[in-house]
Amino acid sequence: MADIRYDVVGIGNAIVDVIAHTDDAFLARHGLAKGAMTLIDAAAAAALYDVMGPAIECSGGSAANTVVGVAALGGRSSFIGKVSTDQLGSVFRHDICAAGVAFDTPPAVNTAPTARSLILVTADAQRSMQTYLGACVELGPEDIQPALIESAKVTYLEGYLWDPPRAKEAFLKAAEVARRAGRKVALTLSDPFCVDRHRAEFHDLIERHVDILFANQAEIESLFEVERFDDALQEVRHRCEIAALTRSEKGSVIVAGDDVHVIDAEPARALVDTTGAGDLYAAGFLYGLTNGHGLVAAARIGSIAAAEVISHYGARPEADLARLVAERMG
Amino acid sequence: MADIRYDVVGIGNAIVDVIAHTDDAFLARHGLAKGAMTLIDAAAAAALYDVMGPAIECSGGSAANTVVGVAALGGRSSFIGKVSTDQLGSVFRHDICAAGVAFDTPPAVNTAPTARSLILVTADAQRSMQTYLGACVELGPEDIQPALIESAKVTYLEGYLWDPPRAKEAFLKAAEVARRAGRKVALTLSDPFCVDRHRAEFHDLIERHVDILFANQAEIESLFEVERFDDALQEVRHRCEIAALTRSEKGSVIVAGDDVHVIDAEPARALVDTTGAGDLYAAGFLYGLTNGHGLVAAARIGSIAAAEVISHYGARPEADLARLVAERMG
Repeated sequence: MADIRYDVVGIGNAIVDVIAHTDDAFLARHGLAKGAMTLIDAAAAAALYDVMGPAIECSGGSAANTVVGVAALGGRSSFIGKVSTDQLGSVFRHDICAAGVAFDTPPAVNTAPTARSLILVTADAQRSMQTYLGACVELGPEDIQPALIESAKVTYLEGYLWDPPRAKEAFLKAAEVARRAGRKVALTLSDPFCVDRHRAEFHDLIERHVDILFANQAEIESLFEVERFDDALQEVRHRCEIAALTRSEKGSVIVAGDDVHVIDAEPARALVDTTGAGDLYAAGFLYGLTNGHGLVAAARIGSIAAAEVISHYGARPEADLARLVAERMG
Repeated sequence: MADIRYDVVGIGNAIVDVIAHTDDAFLARHGLAKGAMTLIDAAAAAALYDVMGPAIECSGGSAANTVVGVAALGGRSSFIGKVSTDQLGSVFRHDICAAGVAFDTPPAVNTAPTARSLILVTADAQRSMQTYLGACVELGPEDIQPALIESAKVTYLEGYLWDPPRAKEAFLKAAEVARRAGRKVALTLSDPFCVDRHRAEFHDLIERHVDILFANQAEIESLFEVERFDDALQEVRHRCEIAALTRSEKGSVIVAGDDVHVIDAEPARALVDTTGAGDLYAAGFLYGLTNGHGLVAAARIGSIAAAEVISHYGARPEADLARLVAERMG
């Protein structure tokens, strides 16, 4: 059995975000689903890029954002994901390594380019994401080194990984290795449409593999096909060890066996771009749990990290999260 | 003679900015000149990128930022500059076209990659730029279409163009075409070290070709090798039709023959990143002059545009500049 070297190893799509401002009329004109993540192919990505406004590029990817958040909080984290050998792949690798995350998945050679997500942010801070998976479809079980999974307290998987076909095999291999090693497996449901695409498999996965489940209200309601948050809450109890359910400005609810905790959202300095809010909540929660904090404190750390990331463009922290948490938690 | 189609055509290095936070200790440790632009080669760029923190990418380039500013103010502008056929080249092309600027310089094929400037921003909002010129060295006189130069009221040249050897020829060709067509030629001195590198040639250029000169205090003092702003001011009088001299928070001074105007800086919402302040001042000033405003109003528009760009990361405007100017100018 490998020694513990990481608090969290994240497995996810390695994506560079391309962020531009827009308005609701643009979303309507191009038939874009507001607030959601939609998969698009290379041609659709090129066509949308042609018509969208000037953009900034920054590294993203849901699980990648989470492990960067863990590192920014002072934790130890690692990432598994697939970029190409192109410039955007270099950007992704630079940014995640410079953030203090270990990342040594070999890049895909002579394949599709590094994945990008065209993110359109409206004045209400909602983000609408159109993702071209590119090289992410090359991630497979051969990229999962059992020793790395065994060396992490938690293996964190994004539901989006269910979209590229071979990544699912990588995902299951990692979950099985973690479980056999007595480590925890965490999953985020990622997006309500993603839940729609893979509902039956997600139910099976949660039952067999998942210890810690992250979902926002729309995702957990979609999973159980219910229309009220409380109905979803009652459904999720006892299906996994811990469920952390986020509700934007309404805060979050932690369900762990018979315990239910209702945690307020932290005030944000500004509301600019909600991209990464769920990812950073998961970062704070997992950092807390793997560093000796209880459920309530872990949820508060998650809320503080989420409040920071929505106060600026981009899905990775800009402020010193460790200091921010120390100040706010007293 | 071509009809007027543009207020401003800018010729400059086509650069993607790679922006990261840092502190003074990092600059000192790596021997980086604070507040300046230093040219580096591909190896040095790779080495610096390896040690710098997570970054965001956004399109930059001094003259490119200026023509984007002109478009954001409601003017008509065009750009001439050289990218490669790589991903960063596509990013540069997308951003400048999406900003409403005409850009049809063919990319360089099978050459160095698109230029990038590694910009390190300290907490005092100063930026220190390390630029790898990459494909910019491929810009040559063959990229100057006389009809385009003739169709613009002002041809705007950045002093940085004097660094890549063939760009200088493009620069001189454009200046001569503009002059013969009775159009105006504007030049920004770009950077005090750039002035050091090319002082004698800049003097000659200003005497023979330049109608409108932009410089900040350090640049104009370097040009005339004087140590007091007023000495530089007296030197520049009568050497070109108009000189617009910027002085950061002290505002700007406009010199036009016997006229001298001293203009206050506009208040900025925040001081985050000074990258692009001079570029956007030039944008506002040129937009004003080419759209019927007097010198004082043009300088105020420049100050408003500069105040916007220093209030956020990146060297291109995020706000609706035309509306901002309408509000502030009453």
